[in-house]
Amino acid sequence: MKEDCVDRFSVSIPPKLLSEFDEMARETGYKNRSLAIADMMRSRLVEHRQKFGAEQIAGTITLVYDHHRQHVQEALTDIQHDHHNLIVSTLHVHLDHHNCLEVLVVRGRAKLIKKIADELMVAKGVKHGKLTVTTTGKDLSI
Amino acid sequence: MKEDCVDRFSVSIPPKLLSEFDEMARETGYKNRSLAIADMMRSRLVEHRQKFGAEQIAGTITLVYDHHRQHVQEALTDIQHDHHNLIVSTLHVHLDHHNCLEVLVVRGRAKLIKKIADELMVAKGVKHGKLTVTTTGKDLSI
Amino acid sequence: MKEDCVDRFSVSIPPKLLSEFDEMARETGYKNRSLAIADMMRSRLVEHRQKFGAEQIAGTITLVYDHHRQHVQEALTDIQHDHHNLIVSTLHVHLDHHNCLEVLVVRGRAKLIKKIADELMVAKGVKHGKLTVTTTGKDLSI
Amino acid sequence: MKEDCVDRFSVSIPPKLLSEFDEMARETGYKNRSLAIADMMRSRLVEHRQKFGAEQIAGTITLVYDHHRQHVQEALTDIQHDHHNLIVSTLHVHLDHHNCLEVLVVRGRAKLIKKIADELMVAKGVKHGKLTVTTTGKDLSI
Repeated sequence: MKEDCVDRFSVSIPPKLLSEFDEMARETGYKNRSLAIADMMRSRLVEHRQKFGAEQIAGTITLVYDHHRQHVQEALTDIQHDHHNLIVSTLHVHLDHHNCLEVLVVRGRAKLIKKIADELMVAKGVKHGKLTVTTTGKDLSI
Repeated sequence: MKEDCVDRFSVSIPPKLLSEFDEMARETGYKNRSLAIADMMRSRLVEHRQKFGAEQIAGTITLVYDHHRQHVQEALTDIQHDHHNLIVSTLHVHLDHHNCLEVLVVRGRAKLIKKIADELMVAKGVKHGKLTVTTTGKDLSI
Repeated sequence: MKEDCVDRFSVSIPPKLLSEFDEMARETGYKNRSLAIADMMRSRLVEHRQKFGAEQIAGTITLVYDHHRQHVQEALTDIQHDHHNLIVSTLHVHLDHHNCLEVLVVRGRAKLIKKIADELMVAKGVKHGKLTVTTTGKDLSI
Repeated sequence: MKEDCVDRFSVSIPPKLLSEFDEMARETGYKNRSLAIADMMRSRLVEHRQKFGAEQIAGTITLVYDHHRQHVQEALTDIQHDHHNLIVSTLHVHLDHHNCLEVLVVRGRAKLIKKIADELMVAKGVKHGKLTVTTTGKDLSI
């Protein structure tokens, strides 16, 4: 795809919203308004598509926990091995003597990914958990 | 919002992305493209205005990109090395022949983390980027 | 397997070698000579088995390079994506402004793993590369 | 080595491991088990005597273990958190329902790194462990 192969169309936006958006785009580092809008469209499509359970997604599950809490790590590892085909790998960062940050890279059907994320986040001892959904890249043009 | 008080401007978007976006907007129930874009702008502003101050955070930056796009990887690595003291490590997953999923584990002052995330997500060739903020665990009891 | 299910046999070793070995085992932290010998046996089996090309192995490829060297990162990523089914994931650590440490977790037939390792290690700009072979765990009792 | 000047002692090894070792020793061409064990001891001493001093190194520690073995994971995590300033991050790959591959990226004084590696590899339940030393890149030109 040549980068100058674009469709041109016009949009009507309330003036105050437009100027606020332009300021945000400038602050974020976008070279022009169209690039900022194209990026928003892609993000919106990623969010929209994860609602369908059968969709293939990639993503991360981020967990913070205190590894001194009895059995928390055993529980988390057991859940992960039960779904080892959906978990590409897990990155573990030792934040301090107590706290662990664990990031799981996951890939598979949206509804299965959500199920694992829920199981992990409700596990006793987990301070904070978050599922971040992104795309496998295949269905998103640029 | 009064519909006749609007600014009219033109936007250039790759045709495939535009048609995917239009389909999504229709499915969601938007009456026209401008209303869908205005809504996205508002959501984006809410995110952008989240306060990122001097507090210490831990988190991840998730990026999906096509490594065949000229210079995208060089650009991303340069940005990362400029801030190597804030990036604990980066996990790279080769999704397929084209697409890469990269997860950066970051730690430091919130506003600096936000700045790196913006720089990376705006980089040309990045299909989707997301900053996920979590805690360093210290200030969160369980 | 119960841990006290062991075979007992006797070994004849030159006295000086034995006392040096015992000192090493103590320094390393082994509780007794048998545990140290069992660990050596497992390591020796892992090394022995990697000689056969069709054997499934797991391992890591460790690379240190200067990402400012023209095209080094593009070259490394291209090689990795050509074999993305053998590479589980890659961990990238930004050592300083120039130097990168990259650890690839690999899994597959020994001879294919060796081929990728060779391609990566000879790539221009790589300062140091090393293939570390371990086991998939399946064929190693404890 | 004079063969009659030997110390005789008894060793206890799990039966399956012993028979695998014997098969390997036969394939390699050893006349008896004692000669194979003596050779392993010498190799192990050479490795052990490598000098690990005050110099800064980067490297990886690779571990394979069965996470179902009682307390193995707790033990490994405790050791890691005791030295969290030397461990950049840990990548965990779920090989199958039982086996885990863990790669620690480490950085710091050589002798401290060696000490952690020994502690981890000796831990009960670890099937195979290996320390791979590389450079921080600073002292190696290209």
